[in-house]
Amino acid sequence: MNIVVITNGHIGNIKSLIKYINECDYIICADGAARYLEEINIVPNMLVGDFDSIQLDNIEWMEEKGVGFNKFPTEKDKTDTELAIDFALDKNPSVITLIGAVGSRVDHSLGNIFLLKKILDNKVIGRIIGENLEMYLIEDGVKIEGEFGDVLSLIPLSIEVKGVTIDNVAYPLNKANMRLGSTWGISNEFKERSIIEVTIDEGLLLVIKTRE
Amino acid sequence: MNIVVITNGHIGNIKSLIKYINECDYIICADGAARYLEEINIVPNMLVGDFDSIQLDNIEWMEEKGVGFNKFPTEKDKTDTELAIDFALDKNPSVITLIGAVGSRVDHSLGNIFLLKKILDNKVIGRIIGENLEMYLIEDGVKIEGEFGDVLSLIPLSIEVKGVTIDNVAYPLNKANMRLGSTWGISNEFKERSIIEVTIDEGLLLVIKTRE
Repeated sequence: MNIVVITNGHIGNIKSLIKYINECDYIICADGAARYLEEINIVPNMLVGDFDSIQLDNIEWMEEKGVGFNKFPTEKDKTDTELAIDFALDKNPSVITLIGAVGSRVDHSLGNIFLLKKILDNKVIGRIIGENLEMYLIEDGVKIEGEFGDVLSLIPLSIEVKGVTIDNVAYPLNKANMRLGSTWGISNEFKERSIIEVTIDEGLLLVIKTRE
Repeated sequence: MNIVVITNGHIGNIKSLIKYINECDYIICADGAARYLEEINIVPNMLVGDFDSIQLDNIEWMEEKGVGFNKFPTEKDKTDTELAIDFALDKNPSVITLIGAVGSRVDHSLGNIFLLKKILDNKVIGRIIGENLEMYLIEDGVKIEGEFGDVLSLIPLSIEVKGVTIDNVAYPLNKANMRLGSTWGISNEFKERSIIEVTIDEGLLLVIKTRE
């Protein structure tokens, strides 16, 4: 099962992301992100959160459409996005896609990026998708499709990442070691339309594809 | 010595940050960030980078003003910001302040945030300052001044952070343990105008103050 979580960050043009939503079998809306779904008239399966950021008309729309509601108290120990991910993980998915996870308040963006670790710990593939953005947290490897000029950045999330290997990019690496706090892996580039594989032997690595 | 590095992310209203620049003894401009400094007519001590993002008129302005230039080849293993920080670290400062470090391309923002680890490893206090943003990476503690309603978020950057203690906020913590990928520490709040101390016994913790 592929699950998508729409969360209430900066999405930009939600229409450009419809294909990622349609690929999924189950749609979870985190609180205020409801405004994006109503805009594109995609009805989620479940609304999760403390409902402190959702607009009343979005709630009414969801009620009309028969969406399931999973409401939490405002004084809670998790963000709406983490609650949505917990709900997703209970369904034993193979992939969880987060949309709207970055680009608003920096603490929320970072919190959402690090939620990829929680997803990974549950042996589920997690990814963050945005307009011109794809992000994965890996402890073994990932394949990413891209085009000439797409930027691929590798950012260590553990003190050390060992055996970083990537080929068919502007700056290939073969069993390289990277350390947290080094910018060495930033701004690699696709040389052509292709599928790139990034693999590591040890550690945690963020793999980020952006298009300018 | 307090050093400020102005880097080429999203700054917003640079005028609101002049006081942080004026507090410092030495100003380093990373490449294209020159446009911000010319806007507020503050002359840096040094321009660092590969000069691929700086505008010609900004270069001419800096030449006129007698700014030192430290130019690197475009095919380099570090971002302009890391080069600027390396230059700063060579001066044995007590504090390095980064301005413009977050808010543009997400890989650059993350790379800049993790550069706080490199600064910390050199026993220097590092901080990221933005419009309505203060960010610190700590392995022991930090004191932060804030006002009623300011949001304070704690985000683990190591697998585990032990002994997290914070008082005089909406949700105080006493020797709490946090794990990477938990959003528990997000969106704490200042209860009043005060100086808050965050301390930890073990691990790496990002401390972020934002104002909405």
